[in-house]
Amino acid sequence: MATINKNYLKLPGSYLFSGIAKSVHEYETSHPDADVIRLGIGDVTQPIASAVIRALHAAVDEMGQADTFHGYAPDLGYSFLRDAIAREDYQARGCDIAADEIFVSDGAKSDCGNLQEIFGTDNRIAVCDPVYPVYVDANVMAGRTGEYDRVEQRFQGVTYMSCTEDNGFAPELPEEQADLIYLCFPNNPTGAVIKKDQLQRFVDYAREHGSVILYDAAYEAYISEDDVPHSIYECEGAQECAIESRSFSKTAGFTGLRLGYTVVPKKLVIEGTSLRDLWARRHGTKFNGAPYIVQKAGEAVYSDEGRAQVREQIAYYMENARIIREGLADAGYTAYGGVNAPYIWLRIPEGMTSWGFFDMLLDKARVVGTPGVGFGPHGEGYFRLTAFGSRENTIRAMERIRKI
Amino acid sequence: MATINKNYLKLPGSYLFSGIAKSVHEYETSHPDADVIRLGIGDVTQPIASAVIRALHAAVDEMGQADTFHGYAPDLGYSFLRDAIAREDYQARGCDIAADEIFVSDGAKSDCGNLQEIFGTDNRIAVCDPVYPVYVDANVMAGRTGEYDRVEQRFQGVTYMSCTEDNGFAPELPEEQADLIYLCFPNNPTGAVIKKDQLQRFVDYAREHGSVILYDAAYEAYISEDDVPHSIYECEGAQECAIESRSFSKTAGFTGLRLGYTVVPKKLVIEGTSLRDLWARRHGTKFNGAPYIVQKAGEAVYSDEGRAQVREQIAYYMENARIIREGLADAGYTAYGGVNAPYIWLRIPEGMTSWGFFDMLLDKARVVGTPGVGFGPHGEGYFRLTAFGSRENTIRAMERIRKI
Repeated sequence: MATINKNYLKLPGSYLFSGIAKSVHEYETSHPDADVIRLGIGDVTQPIASAVIRALHAAVDEMGQADTFHGYAPDLGYSFLRDAIAREDYQARGCDIAADEIFVSDGAKSDCGNLQEIFGTDNRIAVCDPVYPVYVDANVMAGRTGEYDRVEQRFQGVTYMSCTEDNGFAPELPEEQADLIYLCFPNNPTGAVIKKDQLQRFVDYAREHGSVILYDAAYEAYISEDDVPHSIYECEGAQECAIESRSFSKTAGFTGLRLGYTVVPKKLVIEGTSLRDLWARRHGTKFNGAPYIVQKAGEAVYSDEGRAQVREQIAYYMENARIIREGLADAGYTAYGGVNAPYIWLRIPEGMTSWGFFDMLLDKARVVGTPGVGFGPHGEGYFRLTAFGSRENTIRAMERIRKI
Repeated sequence: MATINKNYLKLPGSYLFSGIAKSVHEYETSHPDADVIRLGIGDVTQPIASAVIRALHAAVDEMGQADTFHGYAPDLGYSFLRDAIAREDYQARGCDIAADEIFVSDGAKSDCGNLQEIFGTDNRIAVCDPVYPVYVDANVMAGRTGEYDRVEQRFQGVTYMSCTEDNGFAPELPEEQADLIYLCFPNNPTGAVIKKDQLQRFVDYAREHGSVILYDAAYEAYISEDDVPHSIYECEGAQECAIESRSFSKTAGFTGLRLGYTVVPKKLVIEGTSLRDLWARRHGTKFNGAPYIVQKAGEAVYSDEGRAQVREQIAYYMENARIIREGLADAGYTAYGGVNAPYIWLRIPEGMTSWGFFDMLLDKARVVGTPGVGFGPHGEGYFRLTAFGSRENTIRAMERIRKI
C-alpha cells in the first residue's frame, strides 16, 4: 500500500503566489472591466535586452543545424557560462570562486527549494520572519519541521529570526543552535540590506557552530549603496560555511527564460564530505541542465553591450521604486526598501490586517500587492509592492493609491 | 552542527553517464587523434525540426518586445501546450486525460527523480533489473532503501524485477508487496516492450495492492508494432493507480531544449489525498515552469508540419537501429530491441564483463556504448548501443565492430 509524504499536509495553504494569482483571477472574473495593475508577484515587465535576444536567435539557429546542434548540456553547466560567472560576478569583486564551484540551474527558486536535500533531516533551520516562503515550505516537505501552529503562524521546530523596524529588518543571530541558516539580502520581501560587518557576524557564528548559511543573493544587482556586500564570499571564512544562489530573473529579466546558479565552494566540507560533491551528485541524478539557448542568453548578459543594457533595465525599475517610495510618502505611508532592492515594504494603517489591505487595495485602487503576513507573522501590518511594473502602470498605481 | 544527508553515501559511484563521459574524456586525452563514435549516452544528433526552430525564433522575438514579453510561466505549464498534449497524446488515443492533469516540466529525468518526493519514505519500491539509474538513485537519496550490497550489486530493501532473455525483458509481477513500481516501456536500456495484457496485469496488481505505478513512456514515439500500449492509460483502471511521464527529448530532439511532462490523474487518490494536488504543491514550491520559448517549441511539435518532421526524425533513427541490429547479426552477436525503441541490447561474448567489453570496444573500434551492468546486475553480459548517432557514424561504427 503506497503512502503519501504526510509532511505536505502540514503546509497550511497553497503556495503564496499561487494563492494571490487565484484571488486576482476571481476578482477579474467578477469585475471584467476592471483595469487591474499588478505590483504583487515579483515578475519583471521589461522585454529581454537586445544583446540577449540576438544571442538567443543565434543559438536557436545553431540548434537547427546538425553540425552546431547541442544535445544534453554538461550536468553542471557550459564552461562558457560558468567561466563568465566566476570571472565577472566573483573574481572581479575579489572573491576567489572558481568555475568548478558554480552550478548552473533553471533558477534560484529551484535551487533554494532543492539545496536542503543534501542535508540530514535532523538539521534545525533558521529563517528570517518575514521570509520568502520557499525556504520553509521545502523544509516542511522534507520533514525538517514540526506541525504548523495556526495561532503563532509558525512551524514548530524552526528558528525564526525576527526582522522588524527596530532592527532595520536585519536579523539578530539565532539564540538557539541553528544548523542551516537561510539569509536573503537584498531582502525579499522587505527590501532591506545587511551591512558587511553584520553579515560577517553570521559567518563567524556559522563557523563557530558548524552551521551552513544558504545565502540567496537574487537581488544583488539592485545594490546602489556602498558597504553593502554583493556576495557572502566578501566575508572572511564564508567559503567554509556558505552556499550562495543567484538568478538571472531579476538581474536580466529572465523570469520567463529560467536561469540561475548556485556556488558551492570546495572548501565547504561537512562531516568529512564535500558539499560540492553531494550537490554535483544531486544535479547529475535529478536534473539535466538548463537549455543551451538559455545558457547562451546568460553568457550575453556578460558582454559589454548586454551589461550596459541590463544596467539600464535595473535603473528603470529603480526609478519605479523611487516613484513608489515617494508616492507612498505623499499618501502618508511609512515605507522601507526600494533603495538597494526592487521591493517596497509599507506599513499599513493601524487596525487593518495585511489581507484586509490586499482586498481594499484591489477593490479601491485595482492594484495588486502582496500581504506581508504571507511571508510570516512579522509581516503582519506590512504590505509588499514591487518596482517591476511598467513606468506607466507604476505612476498610475501611485495616483490611485493617493486618491484612496 | 549541520549534518549531511547520509543516504547519499550509499550510492556506490558517480551517476552512470557522468562516469562514462569521464572515461571517454580520459581516452580521448590520451589518444588525441582517435576518431571516437558515441553510441553510448542516449543523446540525439539530428537538428531540431524547422517548424520548431521557426516557433522558437517567433517566441524569442516576443520576449524582446514589452507588449508580447512573457515573465513567469503558469506553475503547471501554459494552457496552449497542456491542451495540445491532452488532445493529441491522450484523447486522440481514447485516453480520457484532461489538460489539468498534465504538468509541464523541464524533462522526464527531473520528473522521474522528483516524483518520489510526494510519497512517504516507508514505501517499498520495485524496479526492473536492468533499469535506468535515476529511479533507484533518487530513492536512495530520499532514504527509501537500505545499504548497497556490493556482492549482489543491489540496494537492500528494494524489490528488483528481473528482465532477462527468458521473459523477453518484460518483468513478472513483484513477488513481495511493492508500493511504488517503476516501469519504463519501450524500455531503456533493453529496447523491449510490454504487451497490453502484460501491462494490464501490473495495473490490476497495483489496484489490488494499493500500489502506484510510475510509468516512464519517454520512448513512446518509437513504437512501430501493434498491440504495444503507447500509454498506461490504455489499461483499464490505470487512472486510479498510475502516473505517466513523457519527454520531448527523444520524440523531437529536445535533449538540449529541456521539455517533458507528467500526467497525474485526478482519480489517483492515496490515503484520501489527491496525488495531483500534492504534485501541484511540489511544482508550485520548488519549480518555476519551463521557459516560455521552449513551451512554444513544444507546441510546434503538434502542428501538422512539426508532426511530419519529427516523424521523419524518428524514422531516421529507426533506420539506424535497423543498421545496428543487422550489423550486429552479421558480426555474430545476438541482439534485442531496436524495433519499437531506439536502443539495441546486445549479448556480449562469454567470459567478458560488460565494462571489459566497453574498454575493448573503445580501444579496438573507438565506439562508445554503455555497459549493461551500469543498469543493474542482470545487465551484466549485455551492452547498450543507441540509434541516436548520425547515419554516417552508425554505418562506420558497425563497419568497425564487424572488423574486430
